[in-house]
Amino acid sequence: MPADHIDFWVTMGSTYSYLSVMRLVDLQRTSGIRFNWRPFHLLVILQEMKHVPFADKPAKSAYMWRDIERRAAMYGLPLSLPVPYPAKQSITANLVAVVGMRQGWGVDFVRAAYRRWFQLGQETGSEPNISESLRDTGQEPQSVLALANAADAQAALMAETMVARDLGIFGSPTFVVGHELFCGDDRLDDAISWYRHDCVRSPADASPTWDIPEPDSLGG
Amino acid sequence: MPADHIDFWVTMGSTYSYLSVMRLVDLQRTSGIRFNWRPFHLLVILQEMKHVPFADKPAKSAYMWRDIERRAAMYGLPLSLPVPYPAKQSITANLVAVVGMRQGWGVDFVRAAYRRWFQLGQETGSEPNISESLRDTGQEPQSVLALANAADAQAALMAETMVARDLGIFGSPTFVVGHELFCGDDRLDDAISWYRHDCVRSPADASPTWDIPEPDSLGG
Repeated sequence: MPADHIDFWVTMGSTYSYLSVMRLVDLQRTSGIRFNWRPFHLLVILQEMKHVPFADKPAKSAYMWRDIERRAAMYGLPLSLPVPYPAKQSITANLVAVVGMRQGWGVDFVRAAYRRWFQLGQETGSEPNISESLRDTGQEPQSVLALANAADAQAALMAETMVARDLGIFGSPTFVVGHELFCGDDRLDDAISWYRHDCVRSPADASPTWDIPEPDSLGG
Repeated sequence: MPADHIDFWVTMGSTYSYLSVMRLVDLQRTSGIRFNWRPFHLLVILQEMKHVPFADKPAKSAYMWRDIERRAAMYGLPLSLPVPYPAKQSITANLVAVVGMRQGWGVDFVRAAYRRWFQLGQETGSEPNISESLRDTGQEPQSVLALANAADAQAALMAETMVARDLGIFGSPTFVVGHELFCGDDRLDDAISWYRHDCVRSPADASPTWDIPEPDSLGG
């Protein structure tokens, strides 16, 4: 049975996830593909793997920022480097995201928090990012943070993290189509190709990622 | 001054490099871009960084093979999994490649060795891969291996490796355009875009990677 959506696994300490977080809402609208946002806490998986992607690796870290900068420009996304990294309290952002996904404002919160992190230099997961992003989203920080810090949200985030681990996820963003994993913002086209064609096609062969809107929606 | 070529840094124990190694000769012909193949010994850099990309990381490793499999299919490249990994004697392949680049048959050797590794399951850097790949390339194994094991080739490989390290290279393949690094087969389009336009353009905007040949070259 073909997949009817793409799971978007995202952890809010992840840098490359900025590119996907800012693209997906438009992409869902233009492509008609439903993306299911699933916040998880990647750090637990990385610690279990004894895998530290960028810390203490200056060459890799320098490359990452330059790569993100070039690709943000390609997508037309604002970016103000340097941004604070690592995000020491990313777990709080992930917990709030879990609460938000249940209550229907999670996607807006994740986008607001990434915008503040990458465009205003406010570290994600810490103040003032958390409260300001909640206000951007129309939420009242104090009551949401109480929910985020409660046992229920903690358990939900850990449960999702274990699902991610069992799927073989080791990074963010990861897109999952049926049983296929696509790791990284740069695999989004591959994931969409798999969703549509059950294979990865080259950009020359594939349907465009950004479908051309119908004339009506252009006001024509 | 715009770049007049793209440096292709390649180490022969690298799995993802298969995709680039098999694509570049055709791409050079159709794009008119000159790729300068520069073998180096990545392991030295990784050891210095205390960075082990895939060993002891089963989830990441499983993903890597699946990702390579899907992308090889996209490029129409044959692939017979599993292939032996890691390649314990990849340094020998890198030394032979250095000798070959000097003597003009290096590209053919690298392609032959990757073909035998990924299509016939012969571990790169070990026998029979080394000798058979040299014979595929029209070279006599014994004399080439004597040159590859001499101090001169060893020094040349280490010198190139230090150049790579000082450029900030931490993986293979890496493409370098002027001062810009593009790491991974999946950044080849970005490197070509930078070479042509001094920026990374989205596939929709960029000139096609695979230029359409002139009618003459199609025999038309």
